[in-house]
Amino acid sequence: MRQAIEIAVENVRSGHGGPFAALVVKDGRVIASGTNRVTTSNDPTAHAEIVAIRQACAELGSFQLEGCDLYATCEPCPMCLGAIYWARPARVFYGATAADAAQAGFDDAFIYRQLVLPAEQRSIPIVSLLREEALACFREWLAKPDRMPY
Amino acid sequence: MRQAIEIAVENVRSGHGGPFAALVVKDGRVIASGTNRVTTSNDPTAHAEIVAIRQACAELGSFQLEGCDLYATCEPCPMCLGAIYWARPARVFYGATAADAAQAGFDDAFIYRQLVLPAEQRSIPIVSLLREEALACFREWLAKPDRMPY
Repeated sequence: MRQAIEIAVENVRSGHGGPFAALVVKDGRVIASGTNRVTTSNDPTAHAEIVAIRQACAELGSFQLEGCDLYATCEPCPMCLGAIYWARPARVFYGATAADAAQAGFDDAFIYRQLVLPAEQRSIPIVSLLREEALACFREWLAKPDRMPY
Repeated sequence: MRQAIEIAVENVRSGHGGPFAALVVKDGRVIASGTNRVTTSNDPTAHAEIVAIRQACAELGSFQLEGCDLYATCEPCPMCLGAIYWARPARVFYGATAADAAQAGFDDAFIYRQLVLPAEQRSIPIVSLLREEALACFREWLAKPDRMPY
């Protein structure tokens, strides 16, 4: 965690992005590290955890972080927590809390509150369209004998 | 949406990944498209929406999707919904529902339920560590006069 904190502080000093870093550790070894690069890479998904998860998976040649621990300098936002559930590491450790982040201007709590609202009450309109036709995607998937679940 | 559905069906047929696609539209023009590439790119974050958002932001040279609409063949999972809130498109349209996805084996609802649980009750342990030291990241950020908020 101390290593992640150092990297996050350096990320701010160097002007590379927000005050966040994350490391993926497997068998006591750091296999990937990520820092926030949203503004410098023009990628709103380039949160430290997402960057580290992608790099660790590339390193392992797997879409799963089996037996890995993720160290993040701050409590993950909903996007990153979702990514954690898809990547399935063994454990997650975080430093500062979401409330600490909010005090520094990063209001993840807003997104947490939006996620549990019915779609029609969210601040970004999320509207269903052509559901019947879209089911063709799943029919195709379920009919594919060699599909790879994830 | 019909175009997105076609791309998703083709993504399954070609064995490139799961039955999902997303398009970003600005001023009536498709500026980015993404399909699910989780298993073929070893990237658990390579959901169609994330791929499309990253590509659209690269195209626009911005970390915000101002004035853009996102069309996704299925209701976004929590990770993608989080990414949508960070990217801030104007509107989101989706085809199939999360319940339809669950019937095809994609249980996003599990992650939605996990997100609202207290950290200590989640299936992946999420543990706080060195909070006081981690606050150094935010102090560095708030002391940086030319920081770029996002």
